[in-house]
Amino acid sequence: MYHLVVKQFMRSLKNLDTIMEKAQKYAETRGFDATNYSTARIFPDMLPFAAQIRIACDTAKMTGSNLAGKEAPKHEDNETTFAELRGRIGKCLSFLETLSPKDFERTTPATPVKLPDRPNRPGKTLRAEEYLVGRQIPNFYFHVTTAYNLLRQGGVEIGKSDYLGTLEFIEG
Amino acid sequence: MYHLVVKQFMRSLKNLDTIMEKAQKYAETRGFDATNYSTARIFPDMLPFAAQIRIACDTAKMTGSNLAGKEAPKHEDNETTFAELRGRIGKCLSFLETLSPKDFERTTPATPVKLPDRPNRPGKTLRAEEYLVGRQIPNFYFHVTTAYNLLRQGGVEIGKSDYLGTLEFIEG
Repeated sequence: MYHLVVKQFMRSLKNLDTIMEKAQKYAETRGFDATNYSTARIFPDMLPFAAQIRIACDTAKMTGSNLAGKEAPKHEDNETTFAELRGRIGKCLSFLETLSPKDFERTTPATPVKLPDRPNRPGKTLRAEEYLVGRQIPNFYFHVTTAYNLLRQGGVEIGKSDYLGTLEFIEG
Repeated sequence: MYHLVVKQFMRSLKNLDTIMEKAQKYAETRGFDATNYSTARIFPDMLPFAAQIRIACDTAKMTGSNLAGKEAPKHEDNETTFAELRGRIGKCLSFLETLSPKDFERTTPATPVKLPDRPNRPGKTLRAEEYLVGRQIPNFYFHVTTAYNLLRQGGVEIGKSDYLGTLEFIEG
């Protein structure tokens, strides 16, 4: 299950990259810079589009890192342009591509996964199963969907099929 | 994995119900009817809040039904008030609670799952693994997150911890 979900995160990140490319084309036809979306928010105290992309990437990256037991590269949160944000997705995918199904065999449902320390308290620990299904999966899709919604709010012509991407159907 | 994910969908639906209760309280303090949220949309050609709730429920319901091999009750899409929409979540949870871990043992990664027929073409078929991880999970969180975003957009004071709910940490 662990490798399967990380592979699915990779597919979703690729879909998100394609959606961002469509946003760039839309912005071009309307005569503005797609980077204007980077600071868009659903509500003033929510995180902006750029942060939604970064957190989606980090959630996928850390899921792979923690469950495969491989150290993840650090990425500075300094992207602002669409090209830079898409580059962040690319760097995340490059790391995840290095993980093989075998790397995930070390993880059982009960394997402890420690969350990062916070300034005011040490990170808490979850069983791998709860970490993946209860925290990382909902968190990942939260940020991908919010990024999608921000582009929809900004007029980009995309739909659910862009979000889901191409599914592997049985037979023609 | 199948039962685990359906249990997680149930937790997310309960979180969503709590979020809707907070929206009702917020609307009350501001002196308007929470049902005004039912028609809210992120963009004019997106589905409204009420539809996001119904589809989130149906996605969870059909995932349980298809993977446990139990027929799901039909629910008319006629809810408009917040009380009715929360009732829809309740009915969905009541059905999912009838499914036991044993019911899901029939499903292997390769078990075929047929999607509903469309007016213009018969439903396509997916392997259970792809159905769950590639379609149902992203779809479910898409609609739950969009419902959350619509309430955030409408000023309700909720945060990520309301969306994730209570996680089962190891030790105190």
